[in-house]
Parts: sequence; structure tokens; C-alpha cells
Amino acid sequence: MPLNVDAVGFVSAPVEVTWSSKDALLYAVGVGAGALDPTGFELEFTTENSEDVVQRVLPTFPVVLSGGQGIYAALGTFDRTMLVHGEQAVALDGALPVEGTAESVTTLTGVYDKGSGALVVTETVATEASTGRRLWATTSSAFIRGEGGWGGDRGPSQRFAVPDRPADHTVVYPTRSDQALLYRLSGDRNPLHSDPRFAARAGFERPILHGLCTFGFAGRAVLHACCGSDPDRFGSMTGRFSKPVFPGEALTVAIWEEGEGSAVFQTATPAGIVIDGGRATYR
Amino acid sequence: MPLNVDAVGFVSAPVEVTWSSKDALLYAVGVGAGALDPTGFELEFTTENSEDVVQRVLPTFPVVLSGGQGIYAALGTFDRTMLVHGEQAVALDGALPVEGTAESVTTLTGVYDKGSGALVVTETVATEASTGRRLWATTSSAFIRGEGGWGGDRGPSQRFAVPDRPADHTVVYPTRSDQALLYRLSGDRNPLHSDPRFAARAGFERPILHGLCTFGFAGRAVLHACCGSDPDRFGSMTGRFSKPVFPGEALTVAIWEEGEGSAVFQTATPAGIVIDGGRATYR
Repeated sequence: MPLNVDAVGFVSAPVEVTWSSKDALLYAVGVGAGALDPTGFELEFTTENSEDVVQRVLPTFPVVLSGGQGIYAALGTFDRTMLVHGEQAVALDGALPVEGTAESVTTLTGVYDKGSGALVVTETVATEASTGRRLWATTSSAFIRGEGGWGGDRGPSQRFAVPDRPADHTVVYPTRSDQALLYRLSGDRNPLHSDPRFAARAGFERPILHGLCTFGFAGRAVLHACCGSDPDRFGSMTGRFSKPVFPGEALTVAIWEEGEGSAVFQTATPAGIVIDGGRATYR
Repeated sequence: MPLNVDAVGFVSAPVEVTWSSKDALLYAVGVGAGALDPTGFELEFTTENSEDVVQRVLPTFPVVLSGGQGIYAALGTFDRTMLVHGEQAVALDGALPVEGTAESVTTLTGVYDKGSGALVVTETVATEASTGRRLWATTSSAFIRGEGGWGGDRGPSQRFAVPDRPADHTVVYPTRSDQALLYRLSGDRNPLHSDPRFAARAGFERPILHGLCTFGFAGRAVLHACCGSDPDRFGSMTGRFSKPVFPGEALTVAIWEEGEGSAVFQTATPAGIVIDGGRATYR
């Protein structure tokens, strides 16, 4: 049964999302903060009680808070093992508090026919419950293999290129063999990232790392290289997941500053580029 | 001001402790479960939704659930940076459910004068709220450097020896540089394990790993080697923390089976023995 393309425009009911200091710490260690090499303990993101250190929240943290509530149900029935993350963007108007409550609304903004699969795009906006102030916005797309070919709109096509010069910043982050087992505790329990049998059915030789986990590593690289490690200076970030990462592979994040608070980045493993089309803005 | 030795016998008010499936998963990855090498993903301890796998709880998990509520306050004022974990024991009457509620009561059973410091011993018993059934018992001792020398009872002295033959099982577990930053999210936020400045004041060149984290690694070794990885077969385990572990050091657990469901174990880093007096029982 094809996807229900008429669901485009569907807006979820507002969902209250809350987070605690512990949630922010767990997310931070889940995306490699504090692993010492090369960026030290990152105590402001990994601890709440270090001397002369105030806990702060990594700017990519909202991606685990914004659920696409009810969106996928509106699309109808499809094989969940065929779903992989396509693109992700996050924008913030300033650093998040270490604990809080927000109201999150998600809109299904597009379903595109990519031939070999369908690309489903959602946008989420979260506002502070008490003030109505926008806290963050995220855009996410999922690629559902095998669900394309209904003759629909292919959507915008993009070509990505990085500047033809050496990167201004290059950082190599190790990931751990149990990275996904830790990262999933921040919310995404899709067994594609933990269960070897499920992963095999989805065509992977072993469980793959969450794209958003890789995104979090890349976000740390941008934060430290371009924002002086200050989440208040982080504006936005977007990237496309072009290749799976296996837990244990090292991530090399290369960043080209373009001036005026803008940068291009790319993330790679030894096997190739895993995030392309990377862009970030900062203040 | 010396410790208040008259506090021996103090019994805490009953405290309700609860745990969730997520708490058990977080503890498991915190003590190295799922790091693949050498024991695989340990999916029954690290996931709740793997095919044909039922989530189970590591038998050392109760050590993060049993607080010594009010006990240290009863001892009076002392310098918290001088406190290190001495010994730990845990006993279970069967595997714990993946989520539950227990009533925990802690008794201060001894304060001993070790000369260079005081040894404070506590016992905690937790019962199932609904049935009154004993779920676990833990015994813990803390060594408080600089608080000895009041001429008090030295307490029982122990000598530890392992059998004069090669160990029956030897397993090497890597630990990560951020192991303590992850483990502390299971409850023990003592900055000795995370804040370099606090650790320096306590006389350590950098933060040390929680003794109970090392204990959890050793418990996994015992569980897999002696209990066929089945928490229902685990009976009890005790050990003494003889030397600090720095996150990143590999732990070698050597186990000698003694027959009749009993074993002796030792845990070491390249710098020396870090848990001695290790004993375990199993069914």
C-alpha cells in the first residue's frame, strides 16, 4: 500500500516536552562529550557540580526532544525496518536552560518520490510554555526505502560542495562500540541501532549508529571550533546523512568558515563521507 | 572534631527506592556492558526491545539503589574530599525485576579506628514493598582519611590470598576515559570522579573511577564466567577497593572457582590490584 501523500500538511497536536539536567548530561555523554580526546572533559556539558563551572546544554540537544508525534501514523502502514534518517536541521534562539518545559508542534511538510524510496519531511517548533518564546525549531527528513515510485514530486534536488581549499578546522572524534547503546537512552530506541537481527533484516551487517548521534558529534565540533564552546553563540546547523556509521568508527569533522557567522562542514569515517551538505550559522 | 562514634547502631528511616527499565540499562552501559569486546552486546542487559531477548538486570545494580540515608550526617562533620570507598558487598535472593519499588533501611554497623583514617561500615536491606520479600542486601564501608587516631577499636583485620594456581577465568575489560562521567548518571555525583580540581584537592592527579563502577565490571565478569550470564544464578559478591582506578585503564578480572558455587576473584589494572578480597557465590 503506498504512503498516504494526502497527509502532507498534517499538524500534530501540541505535545509538552520536558527535560532535566540529567537528560542533558546523558545526551552529552551520548554524543561523545567528555571523552577527553581531543576536547577534554567538557565539564560544562557533562557535569552539574564542578567548581567554577556552570552546566550548559549542547545546542543539538533539541533533536532528541522533538518527536514527530502521530506523523508517521498519518502516512499509513509501511515497513519500519526500511526507514533511515535523511536530513536534519536545528535552529536555536539562544542556549537552552538545563531543565525546562516546552510545547512542541510538528508539521508534515512534504512527502517526495525519490524513486527507490520516499522522503518524508517534518518541521517541529518548540515554544517555552510560560512565555510563548520560540526555543528551537528542527527540520527532519526520513528516507523510507521501497516506498517510492508512485510518480510523485521528486522534491528539490541538491548538490553539495565544500570550498576548494583545506578546511579551517579538522577534528577527529573516536566513537565507541557501545555508542548507540548509550545514545539510544536519550530516546530513539529504534532497534536498527542495537539489535543485530533487526539490523540484518534491514540489510546492514551490524547495527548502525543513529544519524542524530553523528549529528551531535558534528555539533560539538562546530560549537568548539566556531562558537568558542559557547552555546549562546550557536545559531543553526543542518546536514544530510549520506552513509551509515558503524559504532566504533572514528568521525572526522572538517569545517570551512565562510565569514559572517557561517560555515560549511563535512563529516567522514574512513569509509567515506557520512554527513554532507553540512552548514552552520553562529553569532 | 572527631567522628561521632556513638552513632553506631543508627538505623535510617525506611526510604522508598524505585527503578525503571531505563535506570537498569543506563547502569549496564555505565559498567561497560555492551562494549562488544570481549562479551558482545550483552543485549539482555543493554536493550529492552531486541528480538527474542528479554531484558534483565545486572546483579550488582542494587549498589546504586541503596543510599546510606542520613548515616553520614549522624557521624558529624568531616572533610568529604577525604572519603573513599573501602569495601562493598551485595547479595540477592534472585534476579531483580526490570522495574520496581523497594523499601530500603540502612544501619550504621561500625566505625573503626584504622590510625590513618576511620572505617565506617553500613548495611542496607531492601524489601519488596508489596510482599515484604527481601530483594537485596548490601554492605558498604567508607575509609575517611585523616579521621582516625582516637584510640578506638581497629576492627577485624583481614588478609587476602588467591589460590596458588592459574585463574580459571581471566577477562580483560577496557574502560573509557569518560567512564566515570557516564557511571555517575546512575547516582553517585561525588565530584572526586569528575572534577579535576576537586580530585586534585583530594590528592589525585586526575578524577578517579567510582569503586562501584569497577565493582560492576567485576560483577559482569563473575556473572558471565560463573553464572552462565544468568542473574538468577548470582548469589553474592564482595570485594575491597585497594587502589584507585583511573578512567581509561583496562581492568583484568581473574576468577578462581572453588566448587560448591563459590569463587575468589581479583581485579587489577596495569598499575596493580584494585579489588582484592573478592569473593562470589552463585547457584
